[in-house]
Amino acid sequence: MKKISAYLPMLDWIRTYNRHQLGNDSLASLIVMVMLIPQSLAYALLAGLPPEMGLYASILPLIVYAIFGSSRTLSVGPVAIISLMTAAAVGKLALEGSADYMMAAITLAFVTGLMLLIFGILKLGFLANFLSHPVISGFITASAVIIALSQLPNLLGISARGHNLLEIVPALFNSLTAANSELNIISVMIGLGTLVYLVWARVGLVGLMRKLGTSAETAIICSRLSPILAVIVTTALAFWFDLGAAGLALVGHVPSGLPDFSLPRFSLDLWQSLLGSAALIATIAFVESVSVAQGLAAKRRQRIDPDQELIALGTANMSSAFSGGFPVAGGFSRSVVNFDAGAATPAAGVYAAILIGVATFLFLPALAYLPKATLAATIIVAVWSLIDVPILKKAWRFSAADFMAVSVTIVLTLFFGVETGVAAGLIVSVLMHLYKTSKPHVAIVGQVPGSEQFRNIDRHMVETHAHILSIRIDESLYFANTRYLEDLIYKLIAEQHELKHVILMCNAVNDIDLSALESLEAINERLREVDIKLHFSEIKGPVMDRLQNSNFLLKLTGQVYLSQYLAVKNLSAPQQ
Amino acid sequence: MKKISAYLPMLDWIRTYNRHQLGNDSLASLIVMVMLIPQSLAYALLAGLPPEMGLYASILPLIVYAIFGSSRTLSVGPVAIISLMTAAAVGKLALEGSADYMMAAITLAFVTGLMLLIFGILKLGFLANFLSHPVISGFITASAVIIALSQLPNLLGISARGHNLLEIVPALFNSLTAANSELNIISVMIGLGTLVYLVWARVGLVGLMRKLGTSAETAIICSRLSPILAVIVTTALAFWFDLGAAGLALVGHVPSGLPDFSLPRFSLDLWQSLLGSAALIATIAFVESVSVAQGLAAKRRQRIDPDQELIALGTANMSSAFSGGFPVAGGFSRSVVNFDAGAATPAAGVYAAILIGVATFLFLPALAYLPKATLAATIIVAVWSLIDVPILKKAWRFSAADFMAVSVTIVLTLFFGVETGVAAGLIVSVLMHLYKTSKPHVAIVGQVPGSEQFRNIDRHMVETHAHILSIRIDESLYFANTRYLEDLIYKLIAEQHELKHVILMCNAVNDIDLSALESLEAINERLREVDIKLHFSEIKGPVMDRLQNSNFLLKLTGQVYLSQYLAVKNLSAPQQ
Repeated sequence: MKKISAYLPMLDWIRTYNRHQLGNDSLASLIVMVMLIPQSLAYALLAGLPPEMGLYASILPLIVYAIFGSSRTLSVGPVAIISLMTAAAVGKLALEGSADYMMAAITLAFVTGLMLLIFGILKLGFLANFLSHPVISGFITASAVIIALSQLPNLLGISARGHNLLEIVPALFNSLTAANSELNIISVMIGLGTLVYLVWARVGLVGLMRKLGTSAETAIICSRLSPILAVIVTTALAFWFDLGAAGLALVGHVPSGLPDFSLPRFSLDLWQSLLGSAALIATIAFVESVSVAQGLAAKRRQRIDPDQELIALGTANMSSAFSGGFPVAGGFSRSVVNFDAGAATPAAGVYAAILIGVATFLFLPALAYLPKATLAATIIVAVWSLIDVPILKKAWRFSAADFMAVSVTIVLTLFFGVETGVAAGLIVSVLMHLYKTSKPHVAIVGQVPGSEQFRNIDRHMVETHAHILSIRIDESLYFANTRYLEDLIYKLIAEQHELKHVILMCNAVNDIDLSALESLEAINERLREVDIKLHFSEIKGPVMDRLQNSNFLLKLTGQVYLSQYLAVKNLSAPQQ
Repeated sequence: MKKISAYLPMLDWIRTYNRHQLGNDSLASLIVMVMLIPQSLAYALLAGLPPEMGLYASILPLIVYAIFGSSRTLSVGPVAIISLMTAAAVGKLALEGSADYMMAAITLAFVTGLMLLIFGILKLGFLANFLSHPVISGFITASAVIIALSQLPNLLGISARGHNLLEIVPALFNSLTAANSELNIISVMIGLGTLVYLVWARVGLVGLMRKLGTSAETAIICSRLSPILAVIVTTALAFWFDLGAAGLALVGHVPSGLPDFSLPRFSLDLWQSLLGSAALIATIAFVESVSVAQGLAAKRRQRIDPDQELIALGTANMSSAFSGGFPVAGGFSRSVVNFDAGAATPAAGVYAAILIGVATFLFLPALAYLPKATLAATIIVAVWSLIDVPILKKAWRFSAADFMAVSVTIVLTLFFGVETGVAAGLIVSVLMHLYKTSKPHVAIVGQVPGSEQFRNIDRHMVETHAHILSIRIDESLYFANTRYLEDLIYKLIAEQHELKHVILMCNAVNDIDLSALESLEAINERLREVDIKLHFSEIKGPVMDRLQNSNFLLKLTGQVYLSQYLAVKNLSAPQQ
């Protein structure tokens, strides 16, 4: 039984917390707060939710993660992909903008969190491993394309909507070509202006600051913070020139202050409809958070505990549900900024949460004048860097199975949405693995003359005997390849009529499961019926232990030899 | 492209067909026919269908299989498990006994057949390998229990129904304890009498005939044919004593003669509701048929082609649909009888089909007086031998993963029905395999003093160096275990602060996929950040080829060594 303290990584750092760490954490929290505000607003918009919910999702989850999280620097809150998945999941159940839609998003955060928490307690973190890297890259790439496209309408001031290419592209086309096109020139100017500024801030600003003698870290932090300036400037423009009256879409009135305590809806129907989506969101949230956390931890020779991360992300999502938020995860860019700004402990997250809480009192009224086009531009620039086209080329060069997995994931995500895409990617990669191991490399071997070595008869000049067939299997024997092995052996014995002995050389067999054992029993029995003996050589220790737990060795018509050399030497002797 | 003739294994035997084979086949077909008639009637009853449909499903499918099948002796027709699965699938959609129910069963045969055919053409037979032996054994055992229990009401003359224990047991209990219990004493006598006779025929008859000097084969064939005698005797009793009037449930009037040509219903709705069931039935039908066919073929050193079997079973099922039948498969007992009776070619199946066709004209009217209790007893005895309790003990002794797979399959099949059971078994065995390979055996190795050998430091007295860490991984590296590997390496380097070199010894790594490559890149990068070099030793040829298709080796901070000995020798030299 794990001690309670093992579930509270906070205890590791809070006992030795000192002034130096306090200073570092405070500075980092200030920087993260400035970055988080526009990002949170934007991702709430992406999820189809009121912008203040983005801020709500950035307060309590940060504090809860600081208590339960095993990473020192991961920053939890709304992230792009999870927001898109939230929109896809909730959009199936309720109309965007309705109270039901908000309630479904809150409940989704709770169900996702509960699922993560249960998986963490049961230590099922390994399940996330079944999403292969190419599938994740493909999924994120396709999601980023969908996100960028889904923000075009906000940028252009039109109202096209959709969760995949088949929905978005025709909607965009119809909106733009309609007789009464809604295209708003002010929106386009604000949006494109912000876009150009943000791209410059990413590309040009860093170079400029470096030339002016700033350190690389500071330059990158400034570039990451650039959206806040766009928010301030465009909000001010909209206010001074009353651009809302000219047709520019604004965020509009939002309630000031901290969120009320909210409860997810405890309805069996709603939970059932959300369960599949929650499972996918939980998986992606976990995989993304852990890989970001692991990357940052390794840089300081720290470690993170994946099962503990499940618990921390689970409680963070549940706390998001109780404070009017939506599903959250550890974000890449925010965590990197937190790390680079010098955050030493998760206390930095707590301070950031407090600062955002204060901001909800001070700045929320001003958001009424924030143009949606500004947020759309922020999102487009943020997700652009997630698009990983080279993965296709890399997978193509590396292996057909990986290329298949990544392209199926990209195509299905683009055309059928995030949930179909990630589910298909998962299934394809598992099937591809099973397919590969279901047809293992098998060699017929013979003796290298004058040595005790046995090699593939197709590649080497080796000695064989007409009445002995030696087969080397380069894979663990388990249910997916037992039928292949049976087929192969029956095929080989049907071809060789002088055969008296079959030797299976098992030096590369790491495991034998019950299916394989039963296949070996069947092979032994069928060979016996045609007067051929079955022998084994070079069985590994753990595999031999397991075979001795069955009565297979008693029924075996032949012998188990320590080495292939001894087997052939014995069986080829004249007496045999 | 495969030649057309490759799809017609019939061409292999028909060109050399001779009088000797004709004699053998004719005798076998006669015996199979006698066995098939009661079996087909009984399995139709089990599927909830009119008994004549069982005969219909035994005519055209046998002929079609003879044309396309690669097995010389497999006998195709209604089988117990598939009939139970048909009842479960169709029972969800229509009321037993209704025209819709029959139509759904016919359509199910068509969809199942089409699926098998497509899988055969696409050569996807390997997919069936993912059902492990323990899962199949567990599934068949639990199905046999359900089948036996589901026949009790017919035996007792009551009307309880159900597709799993949770449905059948309470229904049986209610029927028996109701104030107006329907328990029919004549039914019980006929049923139990038949049961006792059939058990004796299985157990005692063989021994008796052997004592009287009959050969083992003949004794077994007679025992297999014993149900026909029970059918004849009990039908005669019911006719002479007019037992129907006394409340004994009889089969009742059935139309005489061959089936009319029937068409499956081409309704998208119906197909969608049948698709999942059809996939499961197709899988079980394929797995069962292939293992029976393979077992028989091996006894004569013949071979069967699994992909061709998919095509043959597919067309057989489609032909069943066109002739008023339901889903069929290769049956174990009928195929064994066919084999033991000396069938030389699939022509035996054609002759049996013709004989059954003739029988539909001669005997169908007499079936009106056949007691349902007789058929119920036949089914119970037939499925009893399918129950494999020792598999639980065997799996328990052999491995936890296999025990888990078999017990989950048995419990879920018993309590939630065949479809849930087999689906869960499939998922559990794949997950178990992935789980096992996701935590591969990894050893830290050191040099055996005075040799070039490297062994596990926990098991042997070996030499190590504080600045070198050598890790041997006993598994292919792929997406399911890359995170484990990363975790492990980060954990190890966090513990050893003098470390300068990590060597991965890859002599047991049969494959590296793109996920693993990216993990290795990440490990390389993170080790670089903390000034540790990453090296490899003993990479296998095909794995090295693949790594050279990427630019990983260019980025590698360390070297690739041909042997672990060379790696340590080089890195421990004083200059390093």
